[in-house]
Amino acid sequence: MSDLLTIAGKTYSSRLLIGTGKYKDFDETRDAIETSGAEIVTVAIRRTNIGQNAGEPNLLDYITPDKYTILPNTAGCYTAEEAVRCCKLARELLDGHDLVKLEVLGDQKTLYPHIPHTLTAARELIDDGFKVMVYTNDDPIVAKELEDMGCVAVMPLGSLIGSGLGILNPHNIRLIMEEAQVPIIVDAGVGTASDAAIAMEMGCDGVLLNSAVAHAQKPVLMASAMKKAIEAGRESFLAGRMPRKAYASASSPLDGLSR
Amino acid sequence: MSDLLTIAGKTYSSRLLIGTGKYKDFDETRDAIETSGAEIVTVAIRRTNIGQNAGEPNLLDYITPDKYTILPNTAGCYTAEEAVRCCKLARELLDGHDLVKLEVLGDQKTLYPHIPHTLTAARELIDDGFKVMVYTNDDPIVAKELEDMGCVAVMPLGSLIGSGLGILNPHNIRLIMEEAQVPIIVDAGVGTASDAAIAMEMGCDGVLLNSAVAHAQKPVLMASAMKKAIEAGRESFLAGRMPRKAYASASSPLDGLSR
Amino acid sequence: MSDLLTIAGKTYSSRLLIGTGKYKDFDETRDAIETSGAEIVTVAIRRTNIGQNAGEPNLLDYITPDKYTILPNTAGCYTAEEAVRCCKLARELLDGHDLVKLEVLGDQKTLYPHIPHTLTAARELIDDGFKVMVYTNDDPIVAKELEDMGCVAVMPLGSLIGSGLGILNPHNIRLIMEEAQVPIIVDAGVGTASDAAIAMEMGCDGVLLNSAVAHAQKPVLMASAMKKAIEAGRESFLAGRMPRKAYASASSPLDGLSR
Amino acid sequence: MSDLLTIAGKTYSSRLLIGTGKYKDFDETRDAIETSGAEIVTVAIRRTNIGQNAGEPNLLDYITPDKYTILPNTAGCYTAEEAVRCCKLARELLDGHDLVKLEVLGDQKTLYPHIPHTLTAARELIDDGFKVMVYTNDDPIVAKELEDMGCVAVMPLGSLIGSGLGILNPHNIRLIMEEAQVPIIVDAGVGTASDAAIAMEMGCDGVLLNSAVAHAQKPVLMASAMKKAIEAGRESFLAGRMPRKAYASASSPLDGLSR
Repeated sequence: MSDLLTIAGKTYSSRLLIGTGKYKDFDETRDAIETSGAEIVTVAIRRTNIGQNAGEPNLLDYITPDKYTILPNTAGCYTAEEAVRCCKLARELLDGHDLVKLEVLGDQKTLYPHIPHTLTAARELIDDGFKVMVYTNDDPIVAKELEDMGCVAVMPLGSLIGSGLGILNPHNIRLIMEEAQVPIIVDAGVGTASDAAIAMEMGCDGVLLNSAVAHAQKPVLMASAMKKAIEAGRESFLAGRMPRKAYASASSPLDGLSR
Repeated sequence: MSDLLTIAGKTYSSRLLIGTGKYKDFDETRDAIETSGAEIVTVAIRRTNIGQNAGEPNLLDYITPDKYTILPNTAGCYTAEEAVRCCKLARELLDGHDLVKLEVLGDQKTLYPHIPHTLTAARELIDDGFKVMVYTNDDPIVAKELEDMGCVAVMPLGSLIGSGLGILNPHNIRLIMEEAQVPIIVDAGVGTASDAAIAMEMGCDGVLLNSAVAHAQKPVLMASAMKKAIEAGRESFLAGRMPRKAYASASSPLDGLSR
Repeated sequence: MSDLLTIAGKTYSSRLLIGTGKYKDFDETRDAIETSGAEIVTVAIRRTNIGQNAGEPNLLDYITPDKYTILPNTAGCYTAEEAVRCCKLARELLDGHDLVKLEVLGDQKTLYPHIPHTLTAARELIDDGFKVMVYTNDDPIVAKELEDMGCVAVMPLGSLIGSGLGILNPHNIRLIMEEAQVPIIVDAGVGTASDAAIAMEMGCDGVLLNSAVAHAQKPVLMASAMKKAIEAGRESFLAGRMPRKAYASASSPLDGLSR
Repeated sequence: MSDLLTIAGKTYSSRLLIGTGKYKDFDETRDAIETSGAEIVTVAIRRTNIGQNAGEPNLLDYITPDKYTILPNTAGCYTAEEAVRCCKLARELLDGHDLVKLEVLGDQKTLYPHIPHTLTAARELIDDGFKVMVYTNDDPIVAKELEDMGCVAVMPLGSLIGSGLGILNPHNIRLIMEEAQVPIIVDAGVGTASDAAIAMEMGCDGVLLNSAVAHAQKPVLMASAMKKAIEAGRESFLAGRMPRKAYASASSPLDGLSR
């Protein structure tokens, strides 16, 4: 079965996007990412050396651009200006690479996006030729506006970055998907394999996660779990689940009974 | 990694147990079951021909006992007496095979177990040399009593048979697992891949399902999803999930904040 | 509006039944119970002095039988025999009073009912002329059996006694209510006012609670909250709630969208 | 007990704010609102006649400003400009009344707020001397920004206007409350009495609702239910609920067991 994810004109067979932070060392990062099957790997330009600091270990020696699509992200940026500058730096470091993940944060406690700044930065980046995948809250109006201005993927949070609380408001994610023509990728909040499966079963195009693997007790084993969970959820979505029923007898529909 | 499920002294690598009812035909049954990777296949003796009706298609020509552990079940029995008789018939048909799945039902609307009859039948079957895997409600006291009398696996329902409502009361399943020395296998209620993953992440030893695959729009694809979901959930359990946090900052634990 | 609860032929305007344990002293017990508006007050015969111990403070001096319906309960009994004996003692102490709340427990960790013993004790007590309100699990088959043998009210647990976890499996409570001709009273698990309101909105006939009031930081204020929550839930049930909708526009029903 | 809600320097004993739309007629509106005990009554200036249309029935003859605080709202406005104009019209009609509820909507399907327009309109209104209560999504960064610019109350949605889905993301509402110095009032989504009780138990300062009463089968009875539910939830919050426990035994905390 050919079931590919297309982002900015490029196709991927894996629907798991993965971060590179919070691992013990680059060896563990590489092992987990290889096991996960991810093809798109996101890198916080402000925190990870991909060449800025000559003489220090370089992530790209472990996660190589010939094998993975490197997705620079603007984690740690709290204004549109900072985020735009960060993307430009990434483009230089990566020889003109123009696919970026934009995040402009609102505060340190929640790492929630700052929506007005996010809108501003997205517009500027698109005008400057970037292909922007954008971290946002789960507001369907904001998601549509980001798509309409030309973002190549919209990435609503499931819950707070690093929280592992799963998808707190599936209803909003569904509202976003109903109106979307670009890929919707749940970004932030996934804590365990079933969270990822649930996102995919809802019809999301992909899941981006980091802590769920990096902060598991056994990151590489969790990376394997996530690979399978994403595939399970996607296949379950494509297979079309059985209807829910309130009673064991086949003729009794659920409607009206259960909350 | 060797991570085997042991039931009545025999080991299995798959933790997905699967039913044979509700498929279009035996070809579809076989294709779905092969794809699922299940090694234990349960058969309703009252509804499925495994030799009782000479001249009719025989399930065992499709799902062969040399390849699968056939698990006769007593679906459709509403008294201890019927269920015991049904198991004896199965033992004859299967040349002395003594592993059975006992279910004694309470009514047709819910297909909930009838607990007093279940206890009676389990005792009789064990006394008669059967190895009894037993369908039960999610009452921890009943589960313990069934284990104490010698059942080889206890199989609490997640929700009503055929409902696809998932695990309605995870707390009770956890209470059962905390006290159990025999495998706890969620039986009934799983509707989609994430339901199965959740059961395994909770630490269940296995999942038995039927409608979730047979009543999916594409049963064979759903069988594949279930195989991966079970493995994903198991690996996630073994990998040890990240802690849940109320805030994005790493130092803030969840306790006391979220409901 | 006349909306009365009838149990064993007697009518009550309050649908809140309340326990007497775990308070600081009998003064607090009385203040909380008066504030709650409860008319049926349950007393653990094994733990509370209602005359067994002459010379010690007697609950009945604070909660007087002329004002309240005293409902002796068998908390602390782990066999049918103990429970039956306990009810007979209560009947003596209360001059022939025959309304009792039966609970036969399965273990100390969960205080879950022991169903076979509960069935046995209920039968014996009914044969002996008692009017039995019975604590049970949320199994609809068991609930129906208890009603069929003549119990005057069936009292399924919402969650573990003293846990405050709310109603963990509303689906089962609904299944019980659908088949019931006697009052269904949620007993155990209510932790806060909204839990009580939810039970009533589902259509339960009443709620019995104790810890939620006695273990609140301000028991008397929580008793007031519970009184209002029970009334709010009941009125909400009778008023008929608005339908749920997936969208803001009035013409879009929820069906099929939200989980 | 004195427990008052203060908004823009004025105190209220009721924490239920109520809308005036969707009733059969103004008589029903009045009866429901009187029964609800609400002191703040919100009116959609674009839809309800409070004097714009001379010769037609005027809501203010039923809900009189001497008895209620009339809260004009901008329902139906999709731009900052429209919303500001609408508030000015209301101020004229109400003789200089400057307390308004701002809502700038994003689309008709969801009636979600349009955040950038909401921020713009709020700033303009505040500069023009209005006291602004503001409808917003449940994004904690946006909520804080609205408070910081001088809104007198922040009113996050529980779920879509008119949906009756309850509070879909309690975690976000809690995050908003933790940082707030002004009243946080859940606006939109409440469908039944327990939804309102839950909002108050979480510590919200108030609840604004309309459809839950107007679209109940018996609006006046539901208004009574809502009055009690709000009070129950508030008292429950103030009383301090019992801790949740995983087991029945008092010494076993919940932490780490239940999801």
